Amino acid sequence: MKALVYQGPGQKDWQDKPAPSVLKPTDAIVRITRTTICGTDLHILKGDVPAVEPGRTLGHEGVGVVEEVGAAVRNFKKGDRVLISCVTSCGSCPNCKRQLYSHCADGGWILGHLIDGTQAEQVRIPHADNSLYPIPEGADEEALVMLSDILPTGFEIGVLAGQVKPGDTVAIVGAGPVGMAALLTAQFYSPGRLIMLDADPNRLEAALQFGATDVIDVTRVNAVEQLMAMTDGVGVDVAIEAVGIPATFDVCQQAIAPGGRVANVGVHGKSVELHLEKLWIQNITISTGLVNTNTTPMLMKTVQSGRIEPAKLITHRFRLADILKAYEVFGNAAKEKAMKVILAAD
Amino acid sequence: MKALVYQGPGQKDWQDKPAPSVLKPTDAIVRITRTTICGTDLHILKGDVPAVEPGRTLGHEGVGVVEEVGAAVRNFKKGDRVLISCVTSCGSCPNCKRQLYSHCADGGWILGHLIDGTQAEQVRIPHADNSLYPIPEGADEEALVMLSDILPTGFEIGVLAGQVKPGDTVAIVGAGPVGMAALLTAQFYSPGRLIMLDADPNRLEAALQFGATDVIDVTRVNAVEQLMAMTDGVGVDVAIEAVGIPATFDVCQQAIAPGGRVANVGVHGKSVELHLEKLWIQNITISTGLVNTNTTPMLMKTVQSGRIEPAKLITHRFRLADILKAYEVFGNAAKEKAMKVILAAD
Repeated sequence: MKALVYQGPGQKDWQDKPAPSVLKPTDAIVRITRTTICGTDLHILKGDVPAVEPGRTLGHEGVGVVEEVGAAVRNFKKGDRVLISCVTSCGSCPNCKRQLYSHCADGGWILGHLIDGTQAEQVRIPHADNSLYPIPEGADEEALVMLSDILPTGFEIGVLAGQVKPGDTVAIVGAGPVGMAALLTAQFYSPGRLIMLDADPNRLEAALQFGATDVIDVTRVNAVEQLMAMTDGVGVDVAIEAVGIPATFDVCQQAIAPGGRVANVGVHGKSVELHLEKLWIQNITISTGLVNTNTTPMLMKTVQSGRIEPAKLITHRFRLADILKAYEVFGNAAKEKAMKVILAAD
Repeated sequence: MKALVYQGPGQKDWQDKPAPSVLKPTDAIVRITRTTICGTDLHILKGDVPAVEPGRTLGHEGVGVVEEVGAAVRNFKKGDRVLISCVTSCGSCPNCKRQLYSHCADGGWILGHLIDGTQAEQVRIPHADNSLYPIPEGADEEALVMLSDILPTGFEIGVLAGQVKPGDTVAIVGAGPVGMAALLTAQFYSPGRLIMLDADPNRLEAALQFGATDVIDVTRVNAVEQLMAMTDGVGVDVAIEAVGIPATFDVCQQAIAPGGRVANVGVHGKSVELHLEKLWIQNITISTGLVNTNTTPMLMKTVQSGRIEPAKLITHRFRLADILKAYEVFGNAAKEKAMKVILAAD
């Protein structure tokens, strides 16, 4: 089969590779029908995630059709259409038993990281009963690719951890795919204001279409001063960090109101200076996390009912065989006005 | 009357001062019967809290008897025995209406800070209806002095914000009065292990008597390594920071388990380095806060029922007139084996 293979920092290829096979009774083999590229894949290609070894197939998002299942798989059979979760979970370790699937003792984020991933014609999914979700009849597969990672990530680690409540003023720092996922899912809870911050005017324009009440172009104004001015000097109730650099975390800690919640969603490569000398007295909460994907079934219902339309985030479509072209476009997201790309198998 | 007056960094005196009078209809004048000294008072005396101006009477804890009330005070009358809350709250501003009394628009921590405090023969209490609590018949006044600040602080900002649950492994970093208050009140929720960390062997010995299951002398072992060894390398479920320096916060962020909660109670004078490059993926929560004292009535019931005995924390007793001597003892807490001192009016 063909797969997008990491070959060390800066190098990748769409190449032949042996098709995966069932290694454990709990495995399933899935033929990929749709996949996508994540910002994390770009980080890996830069060499930022040294745990990824050359030879690894990238990708942790996708939908497909079950080709084969191990003897212990009960919930899926050959021919089933499935959504692949970016987080693999055994369902029976102590962390899984408290729905902390992200820290599963035999899983977590392993796809396209510690084991071969979804940017391929086929993928092996360990613990298939817990790590795959059935796709409802008639569902839009493209929309569901957004549920492998970005929708639950923005929802669980941004909106739920940030405890967005009706009437709240919510700032989302970063209008990339995950920030947009937080924007879409924050609206479940009817916040009063949804303020989107980014440096890309195209993304801010899109944010307004997706439900932001206000946008701040951080290249034109001081983000903290603007947020303070918009809240009569009080600050925001919830600040969702969806970039992963010290400067954007800093906006969140400076603009948070007493009693507010900073939900860090961004993947950070460096430490940040936390101003506890100011914040100790502010009754704030800071949360972090990798998605558990325990809300995937719930999010699937909201997509099925039309309450949210994650397919809005898709800007470009390619054949899976043209994935190298897709990487080029996604790697120049601002210039290409790209948000999420869809790669479809022939 | 006599009062302990701050006279600029390093200077204080027990001196004559005009007795307070009702300035607003919501004020009460309370004759102090018992008060105490807080670590915060020592910080003020070092000059660490520049908002405190020379001439200010210190102190934000105490019990007493109502001498006079303003025309709008409904809940108290002359002669009532009352507990004074360290936090003044109007009860009607937006923050008060969500029980964020610490950030009351016309209150918060103002006693012995922005207005004259409780280390005096009399004190003026603004918003008396919300800032005083009636003392039950037969209650131990000394024990209740611990409810002005340290008990609710350790409970609300440590135990409740840290979400201590049955079976949890809880580390409390700092066995001073507030750390001890967290230790006493954490036991409401039946944690599995209560590990106390400090550099003072006397305080650790006391912690064992107050219910700690384990103690770590941080002068003898590496605190993080020890906590990791005690938890099979997983880390603690809850880490309560009750010191307020970067090193102790660092122990908390290094020893917290995935899914754990770091509850910062300490008053910090400097920023800290937050290792988001490691923590972004750990699904942790960090909370901060000044006490709201909304749990004071609840804590009073636990004292009345004998469930907790905060009087255990009292190590020294003085006449109020001997407060300068008490400051000397409290300022050399390790040498004097002092935890909380009680000052009693004649």
